[in-house]
Amino acid sequence: MDGVDHLAFERNKAQFDVNDMKIVWAGSRQEFELSDRISRLVASDPVFQKDNRTALDRKELFKNTLRKAAHAWKRVIELRLNEQEASKLRSFVDQPAFTDLHWGMFVPAIKGQGTDEQQEKWLPLANNMQIIGCYAQTELGHGSNVQGLETTATFDPKTDEFIIHSPTLTSSKWWPGGLGKISTHAIVYARLITDGQDHGVHGFIVQLRSVDDHLPLPGITVGDIGMKFGNAAYNSMDNGVLCFDHVRIPRNQMLMRVSQVTREGKFVHSGVPRQLIYGTMVYVRQAIVADASIALSRAVCIATRYSAVRRQFGSQNGGPETQVIDYKTQQARLFPLLASAYAFRFVSEWLKWLYTDVTQKLQANDFSTLPEAHACTAGLKSLTTSATANGIEECRKLCGGHGYLCSSGLPELFAVYVPACTYEGDNTVLLLQVARYLIKTISQLGSGNKPVGTTAYLARVEQLIQYQSDVKRAEDWLKPNVVIEAFEARAARMSVAVAQNLSKFTDPEEGFQELSADLVEAAAAHCQLIVVSKFIEKLQQDIPGNGVKQQLEVLCSVYALFLLHNHLGDFLSTGCITQKQGSLANEQLRSLYSQVRPNAIALVDAFNYTDHLLGSVLGRYDGNVYPKLYEEAWKDPLNDSVVPDGFKEHVQPILRQQLRNARL
Amino acid sequence: MDGVDHLAFERNKAQFDVNDMKIVWAGSRQEFELSDRISRLVASDPVFQKDNRTALDRKELFKNTLRKAAHAWKRVIELRLNEQEASKLRSFVDQPAFTDLHWGMFVPAIKGQGTDEQQEKWLPLANNMQIIGCYAQTELGHGSNVQGLETTATFDPKTDEFIIHSPTLTSSKWWPGGLGKISTHAIVYARLITDGQDHGVHGFIVQLRSVDDHLPLPGITVGDIGMKFGNAAYNSMDNGVLCFDHVRIPRNQMLMRVSQVTREGKFVHSGVPRQLIYGTMVYVRQAIVADASIALSRAVCIATRYSAVRRQFGSQNGGPETQVIDYKTQQARLFPLLASAYAFRFVSEWLKWLYTDVTQKLQANDFSTLPEAHACTAGLKSLTTSATANGIEECRKLCGGHGYLCSSGLPELFAVYVPACTYEGDNTVLLLQVARYLIKTISQLGSGNKPVGTTAYLARVEQLIQYQSDVKRAEDWLKPNVVIEAFEARAARMSVAVAQNLSKFTDPEEGFQELSADLVEAAAAHCQLIVVSKFIEKLQQDIPGNGVKQQLEVLCSVYALFLLHNHLGDFLSTGCITQKQGSLANEQLRSLYSQVRPNAIALVDAFNYTDHLLGSVLGRYDGNVYPKLYEEAWKDPLNDSVVPDGFKEHVQPILRQQLRNARL
Repeated sequence: MDGVDHLAFERNKAQFDVNDMKIVWAGSRQEFELSDRISRLVASDPVFQKDNRTALDRKELFKNTLRKAAHAWKRVIELRLNEQEASKLRSFVDQPAFTDLHWGMFVPAIKGQGTDEQQEKWLPLANNMQIIGCYAQTELGHGSNVQGLETTATFDPKTDEFIIHSPTLTSSKWWPGGLGKISTHAIVYARLITDGQDHGVHGFIVQLRSVDDHLPLPGITVGDIGMKFGNAAYNSMDNGVLCFDHVRIPRNQMLMRVSQVTREGKFVHSGVPRQLIYGTMVYVRQAIVADASIALSRAVCIATRYSAVRRQFGSQNGGPETQVIDYKTQQARLFPLLASAYAFRFVSEWLKWLYTDVTQKLQANDFSTLPEAHACTAGLKSLTTSATANGIEECRKLCGGHGYLCSSGLPELFAVYVPACTYEGDNTVLLLQVARYLIKTISQLGSGNKPVGTTAYLARVEQLIQYQSDVKRAEDWLKPNVVIEAFEARAARMSVAVAQNLSKFTDPEEGFQELSADLVEAAAAHCQLIVVSKFIEKLQQDIPGNGVKQQLEVLCSVYALFLLHNHLGDFLSTGCITQKQGSLANEQLRSLYSQVRPNAIALVDAFNYTDHLLGSVLGRYDGNVYPKLYEEAWKDPLNDSVVPDGFKEHVQPILRQQLRNARL
Repeated sequence: MDGVDHLAFERNKAQFDVNDMKIVWAGSRQEFELSDRISRLVASDPVFQKDNRTALDRKELFKNTLRKAAHAWKRVIELRLNEQEASKLRSFVDQPAFTDLHWGMFVPAIKGQGTDEQQEKWLPLANNMQIIGCYAQTELGHGSNVQGLETTATFDPKTDEFIIHSPTLTSSKWWPGGLGKISTHAIVYARLITDGQDHGVHGFIVQLRSVDDHLPLPGITVGDIGMKFGNAAYNSMDNGVLCFDHVRIPRNQMLMRVSQVTREGKFVHSGVPRQLIYGTMVYVRQAIVADASIALSRAVCIATRYSAVRRQFGSQNGGPETQVIDYKTQQARLFPLLASAYAFRFVSEWLKWLYTDVTQKLQANDFSTLPEAHACTAGLKSLTTSATANGIEECRKLCGGHGYLCSSGLPELFAVYVPACTYEGDNTVLLLQVARYLIKTISQLGSGNKPVGTTAYLARVEQLIQYQSDVKRAEDWLKPNVVIEAFEARAARMSVAVAQNLSKFTDPEEGFQELSADLVEAAAAHCQLIVVSKFIEKLQQDIPGNGVKQQLEVLCSVYALFLLHNHLGDFLSTGCITQKQGSLANEQLRSLYSQVRPNAIALVDAFNYTDHLLGSVLGRYDGNVYPKLYEEAWKDPLNDSVVPDGFKEHVQPILRQQLRNARL
C-alpha cells in the first residue's frame, strides 16, 4: 500500500456518518465491535492469508485448509474465545472447512435430537473435538426428497444393535461436507426398520474411522466426491461419499429425543413434539438469509469501489474519462443490488427475532405460528439466495473484463455461494411449499381461520381485490403505505387468481402440478412483499445516526421500485396500478439513483469488510487497483519461468516445422 | 459403458425423425457430415481426452494444452485437412489455446488490414506457424473504449522506424490470449504519432520473442496475467500482459491497407474505405452468435438428459419416483432454453447470410446497409451471449446438487462461456449502440430515409402505434403474424416513447445518458423481435424431414411466448395487448410444454454432440449416470491416499487434544 486513499474524494461526498451506518448494518454497537475485532484478528494473522489459494492444486488446497482449521481452533483455545466469537473467527477465515459441518450441523443435531443422556455422552467429546462429526443425509439418488432416502437401519434384537446398510448404489451418502477425508463420526439418516416394519427416516450416530489410525472401520467405504465448481471455493471441503456394508452400532446411538426403539425393538414416540425439529429449520434458514446479505454485500462492495476507480469513455478536452459509476446503466444495475444487500440484512435481523419468538412459543407448546414461520423462512431462503447468486455474477460483469480474474475475488465468491440455491431446500421446491401454504390460507379464509404473521394481509383480500393505486405523481411512490398496498394487492391477487384456476381441477394435486409455474410466481410475489415490508418496518423504528435514516429510506425505495419495475407485468396484469403509474415509478426510481450516487462508497464502507475478507484487488479500500493488479499477475505459477514447461516439447517443433517435416 | 441405452424409452417417444432434425440443426447435410466426422475423430483420439483436466494445476493444465495444440496441428497436417476442417477440429478439442488467437485473430487481421505486400510476406509464415501471433488491443485501463488506448507508435523519420512504447502503467496490454507465454508476434494497437501529431489507433506487427530461444526481445516485458474464473476453463490460455520500453520496428510493419505512413512520415489514407473493417466486425459477431447456440445447446443437452434420468418425489405405491422432466416447474425453466438454443442457431444462420450480403455490397462500394448490419449484429451479440450465460447457469441449477460437480461438465462450460458477455463489446455498451441507431432511425422517418433490414418495421410506426392485438383465444397466439405484430408494436412503441422523452432534453447527450436504462430496454425489445422474426422466417422456408417442421413450430412459439411472458410489463405498459391476452399467451405457453415433453430427448440428440464434447457424466447419451458419477469420484487426487496429506500435522493434534494441552 502506498498509504494514499485514492477514494477519499468519494468518501467526502457522503451525506451521512459512515460510523453510524456501520452500527446499523451490524445490528448493534456490540455486534459491530465483535465483528470488527475478530475480522482484524484474522486479517493480521499470516496463517490466514488467502491470496495464493486459487493457484493451489486440490491436495495443496486441502492441506492448506487443514492448517487453517487447526490454527483457528488453536486461536480459539489460546484466546479463550466463546462460542459466538469462535464462530465469527471461522467465518472470517473464509475458507470452507470440515469444522463448518462439525460445529454447524453435527453438534446442533446432537443438541436438538439427542436425549439428555446422549447429549451428556457425546457433547463433551464433540465440544473438545476429540471426535469430529458430519451430517450424512443426502444420497446419490436422493436430494430434496428426504423421505425417499434408501439407507436402512435395521434393529437386531439379538445383539441390541442397529445394522446400518446401503442397499443400492443410489443409497450411497453423497455430498456431506467433512465426510470425505476427515470426520471420525457422522449423523447418518436412515430408514428405521424394526421387526420388518419401516418407521421412516431417523438419525443415528455412526463412527466412521478409527481414532487411532484414522482408517475407515470395517464395512465402511468412504472417500471424496471430486472437484466442484470454481477456483478454490468449495474444493477446500471434503464433500464425501459413504457406503455401509451391514455396519453394526449400539442401539443407544439412534438419536432418541423424539422417537425411541426399546430393548425389545418396539418403536415408541416420546412426549416431545416432532415440531421441535421445525424450530431448527427456522434457525438454519435465518442463518442462510444472513449469509445472503453478507455474500451479496461483499460483491456489491467490490463492484461499487471498482466502478468509482474505473474510467471509460467520455473524456472531454483530454481530461480524465468518466467514472463508470456515473453511467446510469451502471447505476441501474448496481444500486438495486446495493439496496438488496441492505434489504436482506434487515429481513435477516427480523428472522432472528422470529426464531426467538417461535422457540418461546414451542416451549409453551404453542404450535400455532409454526406453519407460517416455516413457509415464510422457506420463501425468504429461496428469494434471497437466488437474488444473491445472480447479484454476485452481475457484480462480476459490472467490473468488466477484470471481474473474470481470480484476483478480483468475484469468481470464487460466486462459486462458493451458488450451492445455497440448492442446499437446505431447492429454491423452486421451497417456493412451491410457500404457494401451498398461501393456497391453503386463502381456502380457509371463509372458515374463520385468521391468517397470521406475514400472511395477515390476506385477511383483507376482499379489499385488496378492489384496490387501485392512487399514485398521481412520481413522488407518491416514496410513501411507504403506497408501496406496501401495491405489493399487497399484487401478491393477494396473484394468489387468488391461481387459487381460482386450481378450483377448476377435480384432482387438486393434478391442478397443483399443472399450474406450478404460476404458483411459483405467486409465491415469489408474496416473498418480495415480506422483504419490502420488513425494510419499511425497520425504518419505522428509531434509527440513530447522522443522516442514516434518510439514506436508508432512499435504499428502501430503490429496492421496492426496482422490484416493481422488474415485475411490472404482475402489477399491470393484476390491475393494481395503471400504465401511467408504472412509468411514474420508473421515473422516481431513476431520480433515486442520483441520490444514492454520492453516498455509494460510504454505503459499502459501512459493511466494514477488511481487504483480507474481500480478497479482491478491484475492491481494495484504498482504490489503488491497477498497480496491484499488475503486481498480482506476476505471482502466477506460469510466470515462474520465462519459457514455460512444455514449450520445447510441444511448441518449438511447430515453429521449426518439424511436424511438417515428419510428414514428408 | 454397459452397452444399455437407459434413455431408449425416451427416444422412442419422439414424434419426428431425429436424423432429419440433425441436418436442420447443422444447416445442411454437408455441414452435418463434416461435424460428425471431425467430432468423432477428436473423441476417439486419446491425446484429446479431457476427463482429468479440472484436477490439473495451472502449469500442468497449460502443458497439457500445448500438447493438445501440437497434436491438433499434427493431425491437420497428416490428414491434410482444409481450413474449415482444421477449424472444426480445434473447436471439438474444446480447450482454449493460443492457436485460437493465432488463427482467429492474428491471421485475419493481417488478411483484413495488411497490404498485398504485407500479406505476401507474413501470411505464409503465419499459415505454416513459423511464427505464432496474437491480437494485442485491450489495455489494463482500457477495455471498451478502443479510442482511449494509450500505447504509442511514434514514427522516427531518421531510422524509418516506429517506436512502440507504453507510457503509463494503465497502457500495459492486458488480456490478449496467447500473449503471456507463447506468441512470437503480436498485432499491437497503438496511437500513431507522426511529427508530433496523433492520428488515432492503428495496428502494428511487433515481434515479441526470439525465434531462437523464445526469450522476450529487448524492451519487452511480457507475462501471464494469472488465474481466471473456473476449473480448467480459460486457464489453459496464456492471457498476457505486455509493456514496451521504446521498442523499434520497421515502418513497413504498420498494417497499411487503409492508412499509410510514408518514408517522409506523412500520414495518408489509401483509397480503401475504412468501412471495410466493419465487415470484419459483422463476421466476428456472427461467429459469436453461432457459438452462443452451441454453448447453450450443450448445457441444455446435459440438463435435459439428466432431467429424464433423475427422479425425485411423487412415488406412488412404492413405484419409482417421478422423472424431474415431468414437473411443470422444470419444463417452464428448461424448455424455453431448449427453444432459445434453436432460435439462436437459426438467427446465426441468417447472420451468415447477412455477412455475405454485406461483403458483396462493400465490394460494390455500397455502404448503405452497413450501419443497420452493424447495429443488428451488435444487438444480437448482446442478446444471445447474455441469454446463454444465464441459460448455462440455469441448466446447472436444473441438475440439482450434482450440477455443482465438475464431472457434470456445467461449471467449466459456464466459466469458459461468460467472458463472451464482455469481450468484443460489453453487452450493455452494445445495446446502447443499438438504441442510438434506433433513435436515429426514428428521427429520420419524416425526412424520407426509409429504414432498412431489421428496422424496416419502423416505417409502419404510425400503424404500430395504433395497433391493438386481436387475440381472442389462446390458440391465436400460435399464428406467426399475431406474434410478430405484437413484438413489432411493443418494440416500436418503446423506441418511440424513449425518443419522445429524449426530445425534452435540450442537450441530447445529457438526455441519452439520463435515459440510458430505458434505451437499453428498448434496444433489447428490438433485438428480441429480430430473433423471433428470423425463427418464423426459417419456418416459412421449405423444411424437409419427417415431423421436423411441426416440432420447430412448437419451439418457435415457446420461444416467443416465453419472451412475452417474461416481458409482460413491456407489452402491457405499451398497451399492445390486454391483461386477458397476456394470460391467454401464458395458457398457450403452458400447453406447448406438453407438446415439447415427449420430444425433449430427441431434440437434444439432434445436436449430435459426442460424450467427449459434452464432458458430462450427467449428460451421457446412454443415461447411465449414477454408476459413472460414483466411478468418477474416486479419481480425485484427494482419494490417492486413504488418510489425506496434512492429517498427521493438522488434524491428529486436535483429536488428541494436543493443541489444548499446549495451552495448559
